[in-house]
Amino acid sequence: MSVPKILELYRGTIEQGLEEALRDPSTGGAPSPLYPILRYHVGLCDEDGKRVKALGKMLRPSLLLFTAHELGGEIDRALPAAIGLELVHNFSLIHDDIQDQDEIRRGRPTVWKLIGVAQAINAGDLMYSLAIDNALHAGADAAAAILAAATAMIEGQGLDLAFEERWVNTRSYIDMIDKKTGALIRCAFRTAGITSGAREETLATLSSLGEELGRAFQIRDDLLGVWGNGDVTGKPKGSDIKRKKKSFPVSLAMQQADEGGRSILERVYAQERISDGDVERVIDLMDSLNVKESVGEAVEQHLRTAREHLDRLPISEEGREMMNELIAYLARREK
Amino acid sequence: MSVPKILELYRGTIEQGLEEALRDPSTGGAPSPLYPILRYHVGLCDEDGKRVKALGKMLRPSLLLFTAHELGGEIDRALPAAIGLELVHNFSLIHDDIQDQDEIRRGRPTVWKLIGVAQAINAGDLMYSLAIDNALHAGADAAAAILAAATAMIEGQGLDLAFEERWVNTRSYIDMIDKKTGALIRCAFRTAGITSGAREETLATLSSLGEELGRAFQIRDDLLGVWGNGDVTGKPKGSDIKRKKKSFPVSLAMQQADEGGRSILERVYAQERISDGDVERVIDLMDSLNVKESVGEAVEQHLRTAREHLDRLPISEEGREMMNELIAYLARREK
Repeated sequence: MSVPKILELYRGTIEQGLEEALRDPSTGGAPSPLYPILRYHVGLCDEDGKRVKALGKMLRPSLLLFTAHELGGEIDRALPAAIGLELVHNFSLIHDDIQDQDEIRRGRPTVWKLIGVAQAINAGDLMYSLAIDNALHAGADAAAAILAAATAMIEGQGLDLAFEERWVNTRSYIDMIDKKTGALIRCAFRTAGITSGAREETLATLSSLGEELGRAFQIRDDLLGVWGNGDVTGKPKGSDIKRKKKSFPVSLAMQQADEGGRSILERVYAQERISDGDVERVIDLMDSLNVKESVGEAVEQHLRTAREHLDRLPISEEGREMMNELIAYLARREK
Repeated sequence: MSVPKILELYRGTIEQGLEEALRDPSTGGAPSPLYPILRYHVGLCDEDGKRVKALGKMLRPSLLLFTAHELGGEIDRALPAAIGLELVHNFSLIHDDIQDQDEIRRGRPTVWKLIGVAQAINAGDLMYSLAIDNALHAGADAAAAILAAATAMIEGQGLDLAFEERWVNTRSYIDMIDKKTGALIRCAFRTAGITSGAREETLATLSSLGEELGRAFQIRDDLLGVWGNGDVTGKPKGSDIKRKKKSFPVSLAMQQADEGGRSILERVYAQERISDGDVERVIDLMDSLNVKESVGEAVEQHLRTAREHLDRLPISEEGREMMNELIAYLARREK
């Protein structure tokens, strides 16, 4: 599947912006050990500081810049916000990898694996500081929007961890992902509007579009976390079950299972560790309930609603087509 | 030793500000598990959410509000900055306790000890978000000053951790504490000036005063980390040696020791763990070099310079006296 144009258009601009944002500003004294690892994390260089092709989809800043341009805004005005948003996302990844004890990200060792947990916490904290610093350069309104989105994201991450300890219905689940994943994607669209001087009505449509895309994006992620091809996603099949994530599929299964199915789920998830056999058992149960199809339908439903919001945006027909290409990509992505 | 007036004057105002800043703003959906633990951490309540007498010295917001008032500023204008600064400090404590694996703070279990490392990382992240949100309410200049101070603090914490792996001279050490500890104290004074509309010259004096006080404060801390009374500080004697902190005393000892002394230090600090016997050996070496006296003299020297800057500030004589009382307290504090 080819990469949608929106993710290619501003790649060079974003890479250069990241390069400038992650430069160590200190002139005298001991150089900070943190800046090199931040550049490594976003994929500007390898472990030895050697320049490499930048990694990651850069979905959020690409959406922000593309939408700002379509709304008649200036890229230069929107860029600090786009960089700020990408840095918020990357700060959360550094801390997430510690929390989930993930050793590999984008095919390379994670930050904590390279420099230890203690220093990796600092690295994430510094990335967050630099994110807000960039956001402030986009003006007070954009900065406030980005800070609010980052705050919601952290709250969502807190809920996600708390949900590992208990069962949640799909409504609580949606509330959690609206914060954890949705907030930054919504913010990408809304901040595009803010930096372009869009009207209140357009800002509301942008927020709704972002919210629906965020839900579709995360639910597709959850689908891949259970049924994804490990060779493509980089995570083994059923990995979300193994780590007891109360993701959309398992919340749905719990809601739709009969008493027997529920007691299987209760038993499996009550264990300290979940065996491969139990992972298979849960997937079998889900398959018997057609959960994969229901989850796929939920993704489609959110994308349909997203397209309705998209149709109301005052952008060019070419821009709308490119957004639709991105939406189709998000619906079908395998990693 | 009685508590200086400056630390008492605005205590109620600060506690109320913290209470408001740490209120969960969510109205629907699942309540965040993070807000209660933030209130616990700053000492507004106990583990069960029951109100207790707030803990901590609240040095930074007290300095900020007192100085703002003395410079003719309005407390209401300065308060969001003061709360923001105290939240930055507290965010760093939550993450520090994880990094140092400290189980007790202010006589109670640390955040990570109560809710686990993963969720404690989120708690610190959320505290930082709320800090910046408050800072933004004090205006763009104050927010930028607080963000810059927080960034420097994180860089300093990164250096502090990196220094555990190597020897540093006292100059690199001062560079590190200017960031790690000094940045927030300097920021307290400077932001007091910013929110009071002080002139550039006054802002420079405020920064210098804060820098010297910050150095004195941290070097006194380092002295207590080696020779402090464990019953008062809550940390065993020699605790900084045990955790291989390259604090001021050991950097000074390394600089002043002869070849024999240096090789003792090299050997002791090269070990995976430092025994109680080796801690005693390092303290004996320091005592033979009169390190404790030199460190005490360094504290006095920075406080003398701080008083010179204080004398140049356009504040009331009564205010100057109260600042001098605080300075004397910092020079003699036992915890």
